[in-house]
Amino acid sequence: MSEPEAGQLEAAVLDAADELAACRKLFALEEGTVYLDGNSLGALPRSVPDRLADVVEREWGRLLIRSWSESDWWNAPERTGDRIAPLLGAAPGQVVVGDSTSVNVFKSLVAAVRVAREDTPAGQPARTEILVDAATFPTDGYIAESAARMTGSQVRAVPAAQMAEAAGPATAAALVNHVDYRTGELHDPAAATVGVHRAGGRIVWDVCHSVGALPVELDAQGADFAVGCTYKYLNGGPGAPAFLYVRRELQPRFDSPLPGWTSHRDPFAMASGYEPAEGASRGRVGTPDILSMLALEEALRVWEGVDMAAVRAKSLALTDFFLTRVRAHVPEGRVTSLTPESHELRGSQVSLLCEGELRADAERVMAALHERGVLGDFRRPGVLRFGFTPLYTSFGDAERAAAALGEAVRAVEGER
Amino acid sequence: MSEPEAGQLEAAVLDAADELAACRKLFALEEGTVYLDGNSLGALPRSVPDRLADVVEREWGRLLIRSWSESDWWNAPERTGDRIAPLLGAAPGQVVVGDSTSVNVFKSLVAAVRVAREDTPAGQPARTEILVDAATFPTDGYIAESAARMTGSQVRAVPAAQMAEAAGPATAAALVNHVDYRTGELHDPAAATVGVHRAGGRIVWDVCHSVGALPVELDAQGADFAVGCTYKYLNGGPGAPAFLYVRRELQPRFDSPLPGWTSHRDPFAMASGYEPAEGASRGRVGTPDILSMLALEEALRVWEGVDMAAVRAKSLALTDFFLTRVRAHVPEGRVTSLTPESHELRGSQVSLLCEGELRADAERVMAALHERGVLGDFRRPGVLRFGFTPLYTSFGDAERAAAALGEAVRAVEGER
Repeated sequence: MSEPEAGQLEAAVLDAADELAACRKLFALEEGTVYLDGNSLGALPRSVPDRLADVVEREWGRLLIRSWSESDWWNAPERTGDRIAPLLGAAPGQVVVGDSTSVNVFKSLVAAVRVAREDTPAGQPARTEILVDAATFPTDGYIAESAARMTGSQVRAVPAAQMAEAAGPATAAALVNHVDYRTGELHDPAAATVGVHRAGGRIVWDVCHSVGALPVELDAQGADFAVGCTYKYLNGGPGAPAFLYVRRELQPRFDSPLPGWTSHRDPFAMASGYEPAEGASRGRVGTPDILSMLALEEALRVWEGVDMAAVRAKSLALTDFFLTRVRAHVPEGRVTSLTPESHELRGSQVSLLCEGELRADAERVMAALHERGVLGDFRRPGVLRFGFTPLYTSFGDAERAAAALGEAVRAVEGER
Repeated sequence: MSEPEAGQLEAAVLDAADELAACRKLFALEEGTVYLDGNSLGALPRSVPDRLADVVEREWGRLLIRSWSESDWWNAPERTGDRIAPLLGAAPGQVVVGDSTSVNVFKSLVAAVRVAREDTPAGQPARTEILVDAATFPTDGYIAESAARMTGSQVRAVPAAQMAEAAGPATAAALVNHVDYRTGELHDPAAATVGVHRAGGRIVWDVCHSVGALPVELDAQGADFAVGCTYKYLNGGPGAPAFLYVRRELQPRFDSPLPGWTSHRDPFAMASGYEPAEGASRGRVGTPDILSMLALEEALRVWEGVDMAAVRAKSLALTDFFLTRVRAHVPEGRVTSLTPESHELRGSQVSLLCEGELRADAERVMAALHERGVLGDFRRPGVLRFGFTPLYTSFGDAERAAAALGEAVRAVEGER
């Protein structure tokens, strides 16, 4: 048996034993495409088009304004939040859907600074520092700078692994990514949380690259706030609304910098003075974006009955297998993995850095993969990202992608 | 001929002469429903369902991540903004779509304060005041309070008509509604703009209740910033993304409090330092909400070839006729109009305040109207709001609504 045949056989054996294999049929994926970009835009769940057509034609078109009550549009942010909550290890009533991740980072960081300052006794040093992990997704850093500027703080960037020890008496808030978007490295926000709390600060978890890919334990691990997007592993659609988690104990103290009318205790009183709602609703701002939110709500149905431990196990098996098959198919020295080998440090993506002469050609390598029906993405400088989404990625996909990567590298090198 | 017959005849004559009558067939309105709530949620344009199905099934489902470039999702915020621009009297390149109105009020007020302070020579009194019109839609006031708190300012509420004279050396920014959401009164933001500018401040126009209902002249009348929603007279769908106008000269100085990654000069460099984009793109924040935004983009096609002067003329004719027919149908003393009789002071809605014993029953009157197929809305205390949307409201609708209101009042009084 040739090496490629052995890989295909091994993939077939793994796929036959995969308890999540049946989930793939819930998605509208075309045969012939290996989709490894679900960490950027999740695939379309098959039930979404019909549901969205009903929302548009019946709920909007025929019921019109009555749908705010009759179709319960009004409560969609909290209802959809409660659908996401189990994937976050969160009891109901703590998650609200709306706005973008960036806007939710702003809300939660400002609120975190305010809580930390309120808890600091007079006479103690002022809390004027926001910690961010040094390799954070850019928007988190940009928004943190704005939150710092507007609350009289400074941002200090520290490696995620050192956040716990970096937190000190000046720390008001910290923002940590659960998984590094570029390398796929899994951080330990629980450890950061312990350290930040010990120092008297509050912490915001960014779970954009972990929710739906691996177990998240916000309640159990003491997160104060969390934000995340819903268009990656949650398959909510392009630019689907993000979510905000506010720990129950902190909800009465959640002092939003964006106190829009729908977060008012009695929005339809149209009162001139702001009185915040109870609960997660306090994280709302303006009129909820119904079309996108109800598409997301429908998309979340694919998670019914799914065990996150099984998702995690398959994710690790997929990325292990892919890394092995890349070594088998890709000529030596062309790519190295930025994603840690250790399971404890790995999210659900594999990032391969092109080496030597290939680095300048990395974007062409990704284009050559696209031509071969393998969709991953490219991030400067020279990084090929492959997201593994356990609900619809098969081991056969991983084998095919690795084989195609070998071909793509040879093709690009052959063009020189 | 009876009085009701005379009203129906007059409506038929007016409808026959209506040059916008043909626009109604662009909307999916059911026969038997008189929809007078387009100032809260615009009706569904007929072409939206097919376009949205294509976005979901082909662009998302099949092209997947490639649609960011191949379907030009990335530029949807600016492209859709340029479709709205003519309705705002704005040259291209000054409007960006995204986020909610509340979030855009925050961005623009904070940016306005920053510009005004930068323009104030050292030694002058500090600009620490944000003016809002006293009858503003609540969210504008709540968000203004937050913007004030985070920029070291105070909010001062003044009647819209007095804003020009109220502006003084401490005024950093002012926020004025073009049309009062409750009474339908049309304000004069151009006059306010002159006054605020004379005082050295900057002004934000909230055009939620005017865009698509009457001519707006942002460029000609010197507005610095403007915000508005797209789900009322622009028919973008429930909670459709809002827009932000930043006057061209101010764009290089637009210093956003929400500098998300998509407003970066080179977003895919994923640089750790923020450098703002040129132009209206600077008003972007997070990943654009594609499903809702492309539904809106499609919905805006109903405006092709529509003359805003004709829209305004029909709007005034409709509201004139409705007020006349209300006097004919509703027993005397039951309702008074909060909406000014003068055309110069009227937007595109009629707000009727229930008087005497009827005030406590106003919500039941609106329910009785709904039972009769006439959809308006109720606002506490005792206000019945009827929005007139010239593209799809007919004079026949206005007659039917007035007749139904007479019946509804009698029915509610009969139940006592």
